[in-house]
Amino acid sequence: LRNKNLENVQDDFLYHFGFGTKTMDVVKTFGDTKFVCTGGSHTRLKQYAETFAKECKLKCSENLCKSDRYVMFKTGQVLWINHGMGTPSLSIMLIEALKLMHHAKAKDVTFLRMGTSGGVGVEPGTVVVTTNAMNGELKEKYVQWIGGRKFERDTYLDEGLREELVALGKEKKIPVDQGMTMCADDFYECQMRLDGFFCDYSADCKFEFLKKLHAMGVKNIEMESTCFAAMTYRAGVKAAVVCVTLLNRMEGDQVKIDPKQYLDYEQRPFRLVTALVRKKLKL
Amino acid sequence: LRNKNLENVQDDFLYHFGFGTKTMDVVKTFGDTKFVCTGGSHTRLKQYAETFAKECKLKCSENLCKSDRYVMFKTGQVLWINHGMGTPSLSIMLIEALKLMHHAKAKDVTFLRMGTSGGVGVEPGTVVVTTNAMNGELKEKYVQWIGGRKFERDTYLDEGLREELVALGKEKKIPVDQGMTMCADDFYECQMRLDGFFCDYSADCKFEFLKKLHAMGVKNIEMESTCFAAMTYRAGVKAAVVCVTLLNRMEGDQVKIDPKQYLDYEQRPFRLVTALVRKKLKL
Repeated sequence: LRNKNLENVQDDFLYHFGFGTKTMDVVKTFGDTKFVCTGGSHTRLKQYAETFAKECKLKCSENLCKSDRYVMFKTGQVLWINHGMGTPSLSIMLIEALKLMHHAKAKDVTFLRMGTSGGVGVEPGTVVVTTNAMNGELKEKYVQWIGGRKFERDTYLDEGLREELVALGKEKKIPVDQGMTMCADDFYECQMRLDGFFCDYSADCKFEFLKKLHAMGVKNIEMESTCFAAMTYRAGVKAAVVCVTLLNRMEGDQVKIDPKQYLDYEQRPFRLVTALVRKKLKL
Repeated sequence: LRNKNLENVQDDFLYHFGFGTKTMDVVKTFGDTKFVCTGGSHTRLKQYAETFAKECKLKCSENLCKSDRYVMFKTGQVLWINHGMGTPSLSIMLIEALKLMHHAKAKDVTFLRMGTSGGVGVEPGTVVVTTNAMNGELKEKYVQWIGGRKFERDTYLDEGLREELVALGKEKKIPVDQGMTMCADDFYECQMRLDGFFCDYSADCKFEFLKKLHAMGVKNIEMESTCFAAMTYRAGVKAAVVCVTLLNRMEGDQVKIDPKQYLDYEQRPFRLVTALVRKKLKL
């Protein structure tokens, strides 16, 4: 715990989860948690939790969030929570999940993010396991402005966890790669897409930028990795980011894959992450 | 339209809305839109649309979003879309909504954001109509990193619209105030809350910061206003930000109001915004 104000607190309400230490027995419900699996969309996370429960013959909880900001499901020792889009939305979920794990006295919890992303020079459908995350300034930092001052937090993701994921991908015949991930603060201009409402740069500028990223070892672009990598590192919990690429940005900007293919691609991070979780928990 | 790549485009798929110009007759469905009303939560926006339809004796559409990233409802000339939490999530919705209004050939569309916020020296329950938005650097700018370079976009909100909203608040006996809004990129540290997972500053530092904001004319803190004020200004559409305060941050950090009071507070931005919309559309 990195906040001494919370050391002896009797009542902590996790506002965006809609419950607190006084409204739920958090030790009983969450004390055995070993994995927190997360991703953007609430319907996808619900479906992941239900599929995991079925595959492992476990019970899936009801939605434990009492607000409508996030959804949360528990299947045995695995907690599933969505985080919305972008680092601010993710940061709220992560802080409340870290506080929850603390109040629940859960030990050795690993955080795994599953997501979709735009590929940089990789085949669509590739699952990229992130080596490290960089921000829009092309620095391996997560930036916070606190009290009018700039703080740059180091980003770091667990190497052992990454290597296990890559090895499991090969074993399960899931197309897997590893590399840097760029974290953008919007979907259009900050990723230099040509199909936004605004576009003050040329197609040439876009390609120059993507080539520069590629040369820096960037394999994909999404919108959460710096915050995820920095907050989990700072909190002292192991973490990994596992994102499938839906397109190769070197070839276009619009996501154009048929629904069946989309479903297959979208399931790949889930298949990889659950293979790891099942191995670790011997399920 | 600020992107010449889209001038003669035959097919534009709004990925996060889950539909495009080829999958829907957007001119027929959206061409008459005069107001886009938005706010964070999807259930709240659905409820707002249904309540508005009922009060004005209009039909409420089904959810028009075909993805699960946002929800969108149409009631007559008013479109209701949620935007999630934080500027990245809002920016995706705004860009796709602006593109949608362009493709639909809608004219003179006004964007209104309704939200909840933390008050700075104002009574809980006060509806703050934002004069202008400032970021974590305490500048009236929205920052984008594009191609490794920093761009600072001017923030601006329509004065006439604001004055009408304030006058209507007084008429409808809704506690209303106007002032600057600070837009933070997270809920805990960037707002200097003492109840996050991390807290490297003292209670004294927090009060110094809140006092500084108060002296600068800041009445409330939320997480979307700079992006909203800058993007709508850049696009040339009128906009207003209308947020109720759920607490006075000068007095505490946790939101502690009973559910009935919460519901009443939460309805206030909706009541104010719909009063304006009904007046303008003569409903």
